Amino acid sequence: MQIAVLGTGTVGRTLGTALVAAGHTVVMGAREAGNSTAAAWAEAAGKGARTGTFADAAEGAHLIFLCARGEYAAAVLEAAGREHLKGKTVVDVTNPLDFSKGMPPTLFVSNTDSLAEQLQRAFPEAHIVKSLNTLTADLMLAPTRLPEPTAVFVSGNDAAAKAEVSALLASFGWAQIVDLGDITTARGTESWLALWIRLWGALGTPHFNLKLVKQG
Amino acid sequence: MQIAVLGTGTVGRTLGTALVAAGHTVVMGAREAGNSTAAAWAEAAGKGARTGTFADAAEGAHLIFLCARGEYAAAVLEAAGREHLKGKTVVDVTNPLDFSKGMPPTLFVSNTDSLAEQLQRAFPEAHIVKSLNTLTADLMLAPTRLPEPTAVFVSGNDAAAKAEVSALLASFGWAQIVDLGDITTARGTESWLALWIRLWGALGTPHFNLKLVKQG
Repeated sequence: MQIAVLGTGTVGRTLGTALVAAGHTVVMGAREAGNSTAAAWAEAAGKGARTGTFADAAEGAHLIFLCARGEYAAAVLEAAGREHLKGKTVVDVTNPLDFSKGMPPTLFVSNTDSLAEQLQRAFPEAHIVKSLNTLTADLMLAPTRLPEPTAVFVSGNDAAAKAEVSALLASFGWAQIVDLGDITTARGTESWLALWIRLWGALGTPHFNLKLVKQG
Repeated sequence: MQIAVLGTGTVGRTLGTALVAAGHTVVMGAREAGNSTAAAWAEAAGKGARTGTFADAAEGAHLIFLCARGEYAAAVLEAAGREHLKGKTVVDVTNPLDFSKGMPPTLFVSNTDSLAEQLQRAFPEAHIVKSLNTLTADLMLAPTRLPEPTAVFVSGNDAAAKAEVSALLASFGWAQIVDLGDITTARGTESWLALWIRLWGALGTPHFNLKLVKQG
């Protein structure tokens, strides 16, 4: 499947590499064609990895991963082109982190709204599915690095889009894929960051995840 | 140990019963002495269970559980009496839930502050330890009802108070007791409610908890 990865940061590069390794064609989109970080990534990721502008990446993509910093998320989708988002599933991996007030970061939208909802309102032609924003990049498509099956979440208004993302996640070994409900449930996973970032401090590593344990 | 449980709701009654069953003396505090809910609880909980006003409960207590609704938390501590809080550990089990905007509830303080911090600022004579607010009442002091060891958190400024609470939690079978840091880390566990409440919906039960799984 041809997949767009919008963003050249750690999340974009890590997801892009994993998707290429799994046999997908990945076009990493950047603000400008010829972005050197994207070019270096494509060189290392090998066959199946290409680069271009955000619009180049989104145009031929069947599925789009939005891996921008939260504050740029809407601008990146705008640059990708509404005509290239129409009817497509956009996996929103972003978090609305605000580093302007020091560490740990706060959220620039939370509680009564979420970044995912803002994006879905701004881009009604796309099927936004919030997912993978609850854990560190290294584990997003490599859940079996953890010694036990753990949980990942999908939030979105379109059932088919969530099913598509869930199937892709399952292909990477995710076992506890929890459909939280419509896009407003992204408030839950974006809020989790406030606990996640402190667990990173307490556990001394970002390489952890939560497993849901139910009473029998 | 003599323990005050401030609040006669589900959380207070459930914790009170578990504490009595474990051999502690529990005084359940209510707004007025002779509160009928508290009296019925004490009758059922048996020997070791007593009732009184918030101040009665706090006065002789070695440890205090604050089990009020979030919006009343500060008023309950005020009614308990600052002189009865001085130097004592107050386990803050509350969550700043705001049901006024419909379901699911939002938080009336979040992101850049927390209810626990508000309480610690308002009652500097007490050692506030945020804990147990991350899961349903039935499991708070009965973690072994779950088929696997799961996580509980402590946040607070006083190391001895956190150690005291952690020891009590361990006595009830808690295995993953995570010290998140100072009282500001309560923002993390209070924010978790936004995900927890949606997991309740998705899982169809409040009888679940999270287990932390680290990469080896």
